[in-house]
Amino acid sequence: MLLRTIWLSLDPYMRGRMSDGPSYAAPVPIGGVMEGGTVSEVIASNNPAFAKGDIVLSRAGWQTHAVSDGKGLNKIDPKLGSISTAVGVLGMPGMTAYTGLLDIGKPQAGETVVVAAASGAVGSAVGQIAKIKGARAIGIAGGKDKCDYVRNELGFDDCLDHRDPELAAKLKQACPKGIDVYFENVGGAVFEAVFPLLNAFARMPVCGLIAEYNNFGETSPKWAGKMMRAVLTKRLTIRGFIVSDFAARHGDFLRDMSQWVREGKVKHKEFVTEGLDSAPAAFMGLLKGANFGKQLVRVGPDKA
Amino acid sequence: MLLRTIWLSLDPYMRGRMSDGPSYAAPVPIGGVMEGGTVSEVIASNNPAFAKGDIVLSRAGWQTHAVSDGKGLNKIDPKLGSISTAVGVLGMPGMTAYTGLLDIGKPQAGETVVVAAASGAVGSAVGQIAKIKGARAIGIAGGKDKCDYVRNELGFDDCLDHRDPELAAKLKQACPKGIDVYFENVGGAVFEAVFPLLNAFARMPVCGLIAEYNNFGETSPKWAGKMMRAVLTKRLTIRGFIVSDFAARHGDFLRDMSQWVREGKVKHKEFVTEGLDSAPAAFMGLLKGANFGKQLVRVGPDKA
Repeated sequence: MLLRTIWLSLDPYMRGRMSDGPSYAAPVPIGGVMEGGTVSEVIASNNPAFAKGDIVLSRAGWQTHAVSDGKGLNKIDPKLGSISTAVGVLGMPGMTAYTGLLDIGKPQAGETVVVAAASGAVGSAVGQIAKIKGARAIGIAGGKDKCDYVRNELGFDDCLDHRDPELAAKLKQACPKGIDVYFENVGGAVFEAVFPLLNAFARMPVCGLIAEYNNFGETSPKWAGKMMRAVLTKRLTIRGFIVSDFAARHGDFLRDMSQWVREGKVKHKEFVTEGLDSAPAAFMGLLKGANFGKQLVRVGPDKA
Repeated sequence: MLLRTIWLSLDPYMRGRMSDGPSYAAPVPIGGVMEGGTVSEVIASNNPAFAKGDIVLSRAGWQTHAVSDGKGLNKIDPKLGSISTAVGVLGMPGMTAYTGLLDIGKPQAGETVVVAAASGAVGSAVGQIAKIKGARAIGIAGGKDKCDYVRNELGFDDCLDHRDPELAAKLKQACPKGIDVYFENVGGAVFEAVFPLLNAFARMPVCGLIAEYNNFGETSPKWAGKMMRAVLTKRLTIRGFIVSDFAARHGDFLRDMSQWVREGKVKHKEFVTEGLDSAPAAFMGLLKGANFGKQLVRVGPDKA
């Protein structure tokens, strides 16, 4: 099969593939094709399961075309909506939010859920799902525009600016009953502000530490001892995960999330840069929060 | 009811009650009776549920006699064995091992379980239950005598001396397939040696940090960032607990543990000091590992 890339998804995990530090996956070798999820069109096929013109979810990576034997491809039905959602709210980022929040975070009605990168692909879904489950959702995002969007469009109870030097104090005010679930996707200063506010039996799903990827350990708190004391005395649960750990939940995710999107209960925003050449700068921007919404690269037109 | 103390249990959690640092329980006030589990005899009763001569499990604390309205008391049947086990292998320490290992650690056959203070009340039960479940059990203890006991009497696969300057290297040798469950009850240098060896999806129940209680945070690793990176990339689960969180499991615990003790599958050792006056020195010794087995204070004779 020959595939033509329409959308390339940019996601923070890619930073790990650009480093030979310890990770759950091997780095991309020098000269290899950078990994990435894509929405692609089948432009030629010797595989009877796929026809020319099919739109598929693929892991074709950062390239305009890819050869595939069909393994791991999933057809996307363009009638169900924007095909780009297959790498966004109805894809890996949405499912990361869904499984991490519901299977590890387990928010109960009336509890307080905090998530950073709250206007992004994962964070936006985390807060909106928390609201659906009856919890309070407090977002953290970079700058006034994103915070306004998170509060006004996504319906979070509040959103704070992580660049605010008063973040810790304001977070405490925004969480008068403490924090029951912290969905950890950034680390760094946000983690430091959140951690003292965790309640007894709080849960902390950990899917990313984007604030630290460029300089692991240097920007993060150096108080493992203090942290472990809190784990003990507050009976915290801290659990790392990646979305594939919950592959068995894919059916539940698609059923619930597509319904919530249809009903307008989960909104999402896309941030598009044009052309494959834009991917490196867009990815560096993603690590700094320059995007506003799910970061996508438009590699080719919907129909060639 | 008037109670006469026969056995006073000394346990590491008591150190937390002697400090006003953050904890899951309030400290004992100055001039208050120090908390502690006891095996006591009822010497007078106006409560129809208890008769003179009954032996009860109580939280009478560090005193020879106590007044009680009967609330929270549990009768102990002396016919079932040594009454001191009610504060040991069949009591709080045994149940801490049972619930933390089985409900959080969830060892699978063939996995490797590591526990420190391995000749003590909790650690000895953790390793023996791990063996019952088909896992490998590696203990860590202080000194040759304790290590020999853990290996030869308790049947752990190996036991290492935490004072050995080569601990990290020897632990790596003893765990050629890495560590799947680390039952954390000590913290400090043992934690530092164990942490890099944790496998993907490893579980870390945290019930204590005895190596750090006298100087919280000073003796513990200062690398929360490195730790969080491992949580993420290895998808670790770190969960603090205290035994009362699993109160609903008490029936299961008593059924299984009493059977294992009867069958000789779980052995236990007691370390007794004589007289209530011995309690302070014995407790300080416990924090340094001067005890060899479950630390008990004989406050009064079995029958007055």
